Amino acid sequence: MDPVICTVDVALLTLTAEGLEVALLKREHAPFKGVAALPGGYIHARTDVDARDAARRVLLDKTGIAAPYLEQLATFSGAARDPRGWSISIAYYALVPATTIAQTERDEVRLHSVDRLPPLPFDHGDIIGTAVSRLRSKSQYSSLPCHLLGDVFTLPQLQRVYEVLMGESINKVSFRRKMTEMDMLDPVDGQFESGAHRPAQLYRLKPAFREQLQLLERGL
Amino acid sequence: MDPVICTVDVALLTLTAEGLEVALLKREHAPFKGVAALPGGYIHARTDVDARDAARRVLLDKTGIAAPYLEQLATFSGAARDPRGWSISIAYYALVPATTIAQTERDEVRLHSVDRLPPLPFDHGDIIGTAVSRLRSKSQYSSLPCHLLGDVFTLPQLQRVYEVLMGESINKVSFRRKMTEMDMLDPVDGQFESGAHRPAQLYRLKPAFREQLQLLERGL
Repeated sequence: MDPVICTVDVALLTLTAEGLEVALLKREHAPFKGVAALPGGYIHARTDVDARDAARRVLLDKTGIAAPYLEQLATFSGAARDPRGWSISIAYYALVPATTIAQTERDEVRLHSVDRLPPLPFDHGDIIGTAVSRLRSKSQYSSLPCHLLGDVFTLPQLQRVYEVLMGESINKVSFRRKMTEMDMLDPVDGQFESGAHRPAQLYRLKPAFREQLQLLERGL
Repeated sequence: MDPVICTVDVALLTLTAEGLEVALLKREHAPFKGVAALPGGYIHARTDVDARDAARRVLLDKTGIAAPYLEQLATFSGAARDPRGWSISIAYYALVPATTIAQTERDEVRLHSVDRLPPLPFDHGDIIGTAVSRLRSKSQYSSLPCHLLGDVFTLPQLQRVYEVLMGESINKVSFRRKMTEMDMLDPVDGQFESGAHRPAQLYRLKPAFREQLQLLERGL
């Protein structure tokens, strides 16, 4: 059995006023020491239950963030991607509200627009590109985008998330009809957000939809 | 760096008169020697370019089949799935017409209905379940099902493939309208299949759609 370098990498995505962004941090060790990269690390076979557990550990260790939504993306592999030798990266993507990243105490975590990435080591550019495609393709028919918002949100906030992910503006009436059809939101009794406009009803995801997403990734 | 067992497994799917079936063959070595399992094997880091190359090699070695459609499914991993130790299986699924399997000279390859599987070693049952779900979910909006037929096929043959994958009967008029909308088929000039019914026009996938599927899996 030939030795293979086994790692996990996590594309942590969030939505800010700048659009869709990914968290990068400078690598502490060679190769590519000091270069901005995805949070990642070796699988610890003696302590990790599985690759998902490794991804959760690495993300928490390196960013201080315990992402509630973490899904396996794809595995990147081969002789050419790492100067140390034949390697595997089991890549995950995670979704968090921007406030979660703003609140982390790790100053070294930096957000970068997915459309304006710095030069990246390994195939981290491909991993981010695949994560963004996956998120965009799933967003058209799922509750996934809600995980980029906090626990409660208004319909205009949710509409903007869909618009950014789908790269196009959505008619307000069509959007509200779609949300009614999908029947995935519960209004939060008596909770409104007030701002420049008139107060807007706050909503949260129905429990069944949180469970549905967990089911989709069962066993991965 | 803790040692990890690195393997690939392939769920080779086809469509027969019995419905959707998967190819299994008896394991030659321990653990689970003699038990029907997916074709799989170790990654050979000295000779495989990447995991996809390993999957292609393993499938050809064990079944004699060079599947034109091979896509990464997911990676299954952890301490519990293999009695030899902490292991990774980068799982792929492949689609071929049933004639391809009938023509292989390897007698040990056996087809099993995905709905009536024997007891399987490791997490091969989960791998097959994930492959079937992926194929079914992608079949509703893609040219993927065409890869379960030969190079040329009639519309009634293609409609049956969609019906089996989607688990429901489709209205013939709606199906033909959908095919016209998708604009993915070319009629083969002057080619008809004759049988019990009147001769049926033969079609093939337009080249752009074969390329589109290849693009979807780029880099994986």
